[in-house]
Amino acid sequence: MKVKKIIDISLPISGSMLVYPGNAAPKLEFTRKIPGKSILSAITLGSHTGTHVDARMHVRHGAVKETIEKIPLEAFVGECRVLDLTKVKGNAIGERHLRKFKLKKNKIILLKTKNSLRGFKKFTFDYVYVDESAAAYCAKAGIRTIGVDYLSVQKPNSGNYRVHELLLDNKITIFEGLNLAKAKGGKYFFAGLPLNVVGAEGAPARCVLLEV
Amino acid sequence: MKVKKIIDISLPISGSMLVYPGNAAPKLEFTRKIPGKSILSAITLGSHTGTHVDARMHVRHGAVKETIEKIPLEAFVGECRVLDLTKVKGNAIGERHLRKFKLKKNKIILLKTKNSLRGFKKFTFDYVYVDESAAAYCAKAGIRTIGVDYLSVQKPNSGNYRVHELLLDNKITIFEGLNLAKAKGGKYFFAGLPLNVVGAEGAPARCVLLEV
Repeated sequence: MKVKKIIDISLPISGSMLVYPGNAAPKLEFTRKIPGKSILSAITLGSHTGTHVDARMHVRHGAVKETIEKIPLEAFVGECRVLDLTKVKGNAIGERHLRKFKLKKNKIILLKTKNSLRGFKKFTFDYVYVDESAAAYCAKAGIRTIGVDYLSVQKPNSGNYRVHELLLDNKITIFEGLNLAKAKGGKYFFAGLPLNVVGAEGAPARCVLLEV
Repeated sequence: MKVKKIIDISLPISGSMLVYPGNAAPKLEFTRKIPGKSILSAITLGSHTGTHVDARMHVRHGAVKETIEKIPLEAFVGECRVLDLTKVKGNAIGERHLRKFKLKKNKIILLKTKNSLRGFKKFTFDYVYVDESAAAYCAKAGIRTIGVDYLSVQKPNSGNYRVHELLLDNKITIFEGLNLAKAKGGKYFFAGLPLNVVGAEGAPARCVLLEV
């Protein structure tokens, strides 16, 4: 496969990046900087920092075995479609917005919204999210993976995790924190690879889109 | 692009995984486990833990700007070749072992050795490495990326970083800690994506091979 273009759709990880309120900022610490020796560092970051994957255990306390290392690789790599939803009015992506894209079984879809146009300098609760009708539609269609361009797929301060549950209970893998500013709507090849942290309810991921 | 098979060539990250002596084991800590709330965790790991990428700053103290976020995406994604070197006697991969594969400019190569056959349960200094003649040959051929199946590309306790330097000074990206047990020699599509940790001299990566 020849690649025409590679687009990085991950958020760079740094101490000054946006994080969900209450989460700690990532920390890079140099653990060895001795002349004549190689330099070493360690990184500490929340599993839901920046671009990341949610496993079902994130919102289902009983799903202690449904952690990152159990997600099939097919959820991370394959043909995908970026849905251009930047023209949607308001902050809720509903079933009516997704219907026209005719979602199908096992597909990987990434939702590009106004979030990507605004950028990711500072955290805001005024972000575009997926509502319950859209999540239920994704579940019914049987898609494999959904990616969103903000730190959470669901409405802020919802008081519940219904949107996460509708997706994760139906074996849909969730990528959050994508930056789709540089990706137009259309077809791509997606590689979104989370660190394989055994036993974790989420993991940071580096994600790219390929034009092939 | 249709994918026939996806092979995970990364080492799972856990507190009991092998680490280079002197390095701390990775740590997964649950930072929130409150009924009715989503579960959260944080991960701490050395930048050279498990499967990872070395940036030039790792061995060149002056190269403070040659860090992970500066490596072109083409070093991480593209057609690649797994070189079957499992029959090599002794622990040194030399120029003479690589010559027959006719390395070419901008290629991604992954070296499969006895390391992958033995597995990665416990750290050993008795590992197969790339010697200076092989590193110089890679530099001369102008390959883009080299991946090795142990935690370091060079001979243990070498007393210098010549092999790293020969590669990194020549803009060859290094993946270390690959597990190539499940990959036969031959052609694949490679996606090896390190976390984009700004300012870091290395970063953990998840890597896959695709049969297409």
